[in-house]
Amino acid sequence: MKGERTMRILISGATGGLGRALARALKGHQLLLSGRRMGELQALAEEVAGKALPANLTDELEAKALCEEAGELDLLFHAVGSAARAPVREVEREAVERLLGDHFLSALFLLKHARFRPGARAVFFGAYPRYVQVSGFAAYAAAKGALEWYLEAARKEFRKEGVHLVLVRLPAVATGLWAPLGGPPRGALPPEEAVRLVLEGVLGERPPEILEVQP
Amino acid sequence: MKGERTMRILISGATGGLGRALARALKGHQLLLSGRRMGELQALAEEVAGKALPANLTDELEAKALCEEAGELDLLFHAVGSAARAPVREVEREAVERLLGDHFLSALFLLKHARFRPGARAVFFGAYPRYVQVSGFAAYAAAKGALEWYLEAARKEFRKEGVHLVLVRLPAVATGLWAPLGGPPRGALPPEEAVRLVLEGVLGERPPEILEVQP
Repeated sequence: MKGERTMRILISGATGGLGRALARALKGHQLLLSGRRMGELQALAEEVAGKALPANLTDELEAKALCEEAGELDLLFHAVGSAARAPVREVEREAVERLLGDHFLSALFLLKHARFRPGARAVFFGAYPRYVQVSGFAAYAAAKGALEWYLEAARKEFRKEGVHLVLVRLPAVATGLWAPLGGPPRGALPPEEAVRLVLEGVLGERPPEILEVQP
Repeated sequence: MKGERTMRILISGATGGLGRALARALKGHQLLLSGRRMGELQALAEEVAGKALPANLTDELEAKALCEEAGELDLLFHAVGSAARAPVREVEREAVERLLGDHFLSALFLLKHARFRPGARAVFFGAYPRYVQVSGFAAYAAAKGALEWYLEAARKEFRKEGVHLVLVRLPAVATGLWAPLGGPPRGALPPEEAVRLVLEGVLGERPPEILEVQP
């Protein structure tokens, strides 16, 4: 897939650490960049000669409008996410719903409305169970669990459309995701390095169903 | 644990097929029965000499009130659930939120507010990934995935309280859960048999973290 031709690529969460690094690494393709922060999105779009398509993907109407504007895709990267600490005895419904919305519902809406070219690949970011199923992160883990189990079922439906779903598991990546938690853990992967490994796996001749980037 | 003394047991989803069979199998203990269908709940409570505590557990205030009324528990069975078919290209947000609410949020609210005696066991029903990660069931799978990943993280927090979380995976059980899908699949386990196997595993001296009832 790589280097053969110009691809039409949608990156959601483009102003996040991972999305931004993806956009930079894929410069030269037709890039459609989605995110919530308009100013940053516009600046990034100029930098990589892409198109800024601001949207809040936890709103189905916005997700649908984005997919219509984006048209038929060769590649989709869902780099939307957020993090929060929430012990089970104190967790607030709003925090749970925010995590579910950011990680899971946004992906669900994209998968519902996106239009793909035959052979397209849609890439989502799950998590290593052992890293997220830990004290204080039950709600975050649940959002990733919902996403992962959804994708494994959705994969079977998309096979009929000739679309490959790729579930990527990354170790901790040094992005702004960690800001509410006091910064990334020691040893977190630089986003550029994470993206290099992701693209290596995703753009190969036969993309894997699950791509585990080893920590 | 079994047969030693009278236990204080809360069964949520008590009017469902699994909940009802649990209530009947545990007759003789102090049974607190929760469900949404008041008439059926009252009849069941009379049958097993339990107490009917109607509640909609997707509403946190109701879940909290239930937990206060229930007091300190030796055992909790979360037998709440629902099923719906929803292809990823057609899925409705309302259906997704209903499944998440029934399987996951109701469990999350119980775990937030329930009061346990030392050594208590709280039992939840997950799913075999291979049975639910199938075409048409992505949203159902996501709800079970959210529950399973939440529990695996929550387990670590509850250990400090001396409470054991047990995640049970059952094959298909012949209950009303399947009504919206045209009835249970061939070979579904009778609920009484499922409950016998669950209690055998859960009430043992050292309860397992995950109890897989083999299909």
